[in-house]
Amino acid sequence: MVRVYDFDVLVLGSGPGGQKAAIAAAKLGRRVAVIERRHMMGGVCINTGTIPSKTLREAVLYLTGLNQREMYGQSYRLKDDITVDDLTARTQHVIGREIDVIRSQLARNRIRLLTGTGTFADPHTLRIVDDTGRESTATAEKIVVAAGTRPARPASVQFDDRTIIDSDGILNLEHVPQSLVVVGAGVIGIEYASMFAALGSKVTVVERRDRMLEFCDLEIIEALKYHLRDLAVTFRFSETVASVEHHANGALAVLESGKRIAADVLMYSAGRQGMADQLNLEAAGLTADNRGRIKVDENFRTEVPHIYAVGDVIGFPALASTSMEQGRLAAHHACDEPVRAMHQLQPIGIYTIPEISFVGRTEDELTENRVPFETGVSRYRELARGQIIGDSYGMLKLLVSPDDRTLLGVHVFGTGATEIIHIGQAVMGCKGTIDYLVDTVFNYPTLAESYKVAALDAMNKMRSIDRMRA
Amino acid sequence: MVRVYDFDVLVLGSGPGGQKAAIAAAKLGRRVAVIERRHMMGGVCINTGTIPSKTLREAVLYLTGLNQREMYGQSYRLKDDITVDDLTARTQHVIGREIDVIRSQLARNRIRLLTGTGTFADPHTLRIVDDTGRESTATAEKIVVAAGTRPARPASVQFDDRTIIDSDGILNLEHVPQSLVVVGAGVIGIEYASMFAALGSKVTVVERRDRMLEFCDLEIIEALKYHLRDLAVTFRFSETVASVEHHANGALAVLESGKRIAADVLMYSAGRQGMADQLNLEAAGLTADNRGRIKVDENFRTEVPHIYAVGDVIGFPALASTSMEQGRLAAHHACDEPVRAMHQLQPIGIYTIPEISFVGRTEDELTENRVPFETGVSRYRELARGQIIGDSYGMLKLLVSPDDRTLLGVHVFGTGATEIIHIGQAVMGCKGTIDYLVDTVFNYPTLAESYKVAALDAMNKMRSIDRMRA
Repeated sequence: MVRVYDFDVLVLGSGPGGQKAAIAAAKLGRRVAVIERRHMMGGVCINTGTIPSKTLREAVLYLTGLNQREMYGQSYRLKDDITVDDLTARTQHVIGREIDVIRSQLARNRIRLLTGTGTFADPHTLRIVDDTGRESTATAEKIVVAAGTRPARPASVQFDDRTIIDSDGILNLEHVPQSLVVVGAGVIGIEYASMFAALGSKVTVVERRDRMLEFCDLEIIEALKYHLRDLAVTFRFSETVASVEHHANGALAVLESGKRIAADVLMYSAGRQGMADQLNLEAAGLTADNRGRIKVDENFRTEVPHIYAVGDVIGFPALASTSMEQGRLAAHHACDEPVRAMHQLQPIGIYTIPEISFVGRTEDELTENRVPFETGVSRYRELARGQIIGDSYGMLKLLVSPDDRTLLGVHVFGTGATEIIHIGQAVMGCKGTIDYLVDTVFNYPTLAESYKVAALDAMNKMRSIDRMRA
Repeated sequence: MVRVYDFDVLVLGSGPGGQKAAIAAAKLGRRVAVIERRHMMGGVCINTGTIPSKTLREAVLYLTGLNQREMYGQSYRLKDDITVDDLTARTQHVIGREIDVIRSQLARNRIRLLTGTGTFADPHTLRIVDDTGRESTATAEKIVVAAGTRPARPASVQFDDRTIIDSDGILNLEHVPQSLVVVGAGVIGIEYASMFAALGSKVTVVERRDRMLEFCDLEIIEALKYHLRDLAVTFRFSETVASVEHHANGALAVLESGKRIAADVLMYSAGRQGMADQLNLEAAGLTADNRGRIKVDENFRTEVPHIYAVGDVIGFPALASTSMEQGRLAAHHACDEPVRAMHQLQPIGIYTIPEISFVGRTEDELTENRVPFETGVSRYRELARGQIIGDSYGMLKLLVSPDDRTLLGVHVFGTGATEIIHIGQAVMGCKGTIDYLVDTVFNYPTLAESYKVAALDAMNKMRSIDRMRA
């Protein structure tokens, strides 16, 4: 007898990966449901992660007038005393809108929303417990786990969510701190460090390793450090926090080197812990690793073939952008649609101030692999658009193969970096070469013009080498 | 005997086309000079055209707080009484910087700057007269004419540069007018109409034809009209100004239909007149047409083989972006470098509020040519980035061939349109298809994501048609 399931596809979690999995399955005509807790619609991305932090960043840029200082002088501030209310009004507004958008997309695609916390009861059944403790179950032929992560909290640190916080706590601060210690120079740590530095907090970043964001281009990270130092950020690399003391008016971080750093607030940004350890995976015949993550194959299938996992819960790269694509691909595979492999060429966007984005390889990687390259550089201050918006520091760097003139990497630092990176990505992804960029007409004035300027720069360098050999 | 010239290449005019011609020739090792009037360094583009108007637009957007109203309410204004000084401080700053950039680029490439007004003395000689009336000459083997245009002024209209002005006069207004009549709904007319509407002026646009910007996608122009009407713009299409009366406190436009429109300021935007009628072209064996333009072949060569012409002086499309590329290509041809033909795929950017950009063909063109297409649409308000920046009206539309899934056109309306258009342009230019956009991972949150959303939309529509046939 064929078992009759409540749904064809059941998705655990409504973050970017879960949403896109549910929508893709629904568009293929499947009966789909999503399980989510009452106050977590949209997942970490919408509620405590990407969306609030990027909205906060936008509010910081606007309210500080940081981008207007080239025009109106270095002491220009749009608003003198920026309060947490100024910042969070905007954040709450956007979160509310985004939740509406998700709800309406799910409804339009006739996706059922099951409210509560989901755990496995058996390989095809999830138990759902809502706020009031009421229990229900739902069964499905295929299950997609998109349960996400939470901030990792070292057991040795006494978090109080006011003075000693993790990245979730940033959004609940009552005041903009006058001083802030950020422990951990990962993406999240550096993004918040740059926002608070822009707000005028004195920020100290403590990082165990001797550098940060080591997957990025070194020249660009050095530019970022230069700009953050200019905003009074202090970096302590190769340093470890030995202990943290609570005091009446703040926290005192004691480093292993003996240095002591006082601050109103200390934020731990020590990576993230997967939620798989809270799903009763054993009932499905699965296990989580010690960081709460689930292992999947290239089709995002777990060891139990009808159960898929996508998004942060499967680990690297744990970006909303990649999670969405994983969700879509997992749903297609689960619904027996032809699936193309996930694009190798994924951009990385870091929403620091200034922002960073890149696609392809870095100079260090290429040098290490003995792949020769030529660079082509464009500086925003030489572009009309750079002058108009007052971005005097932005730059774009192309890494070009002198053999076949393909792009090996594109690195952008400055306004609009996360948007214009996709131009280079499209050239790389559609097998274009630097000749395309040299010959192309770009709108004037735009930042996108930097591609042409950089391409001409690389071309002129390659031409003079060729001439020497001729 | 071989004649010895002062320069290998002499460029008449330092606007975008002239600059790029000079720099390209210099990079090829030629001795180059540029002739320009003392206060016109950078040409119309820098001094009265693109740069001041785009800077003014940026100042308008910032000072009105127009983009912040989604967040802070519809009555939000950053500054209540915006004065001309507020607006022009920024403009003068940017013009000054841009002139510095150009001077330094010319100097770095060892390009001589000859200050004065240039006219032909013979086919290889230009006569240069400076401010003080001092005359000199310069000879060259090759000459590139990049002399630009000026606003066309109908003889029947009495311009006084205060009440009745052309587009150059906008920059010298003493007050932000309470009411403005714009005659001519071309790009320049509509760009200024939208800026003054944003500033709170009551704007009336009078246009002879029954529509405007007819080379753009109709749906997008209708969206623009809707938004401009929302800013209290009145359109009078298929109407002609019969006469204009000066009055103590403004101008009165009388239309042929009998309507009368009173306004503080009336701006004529009646196209532009080429400068070729002021170059003594006859001495070089050339002539200008009645609109002051010069005829060139596909290599930007005039009828006299060693004389080239580029930029607005050769007519359509008369954009800084295309002029720069023309300058570069003309210089390469003049210096006997291999030249690839100018890219057919040129984006159009219109800096209205909101801005518009497109590349490739429009729905109407395709329908007229009986080329079938499917549309894929994305709305900014459904994107996280759209919510964060408060752009609730932006949209991106892809026109896709159902036969081979190539992109036939990309049309963008809203924030960043002139930047993100280049993503679609790169896909088209590098022979990609909609599959590239469907499979690509985009940074999140960005406006660039709209490509993926629109591509999925088109794909789902095509899939349901295929299903019906199957």
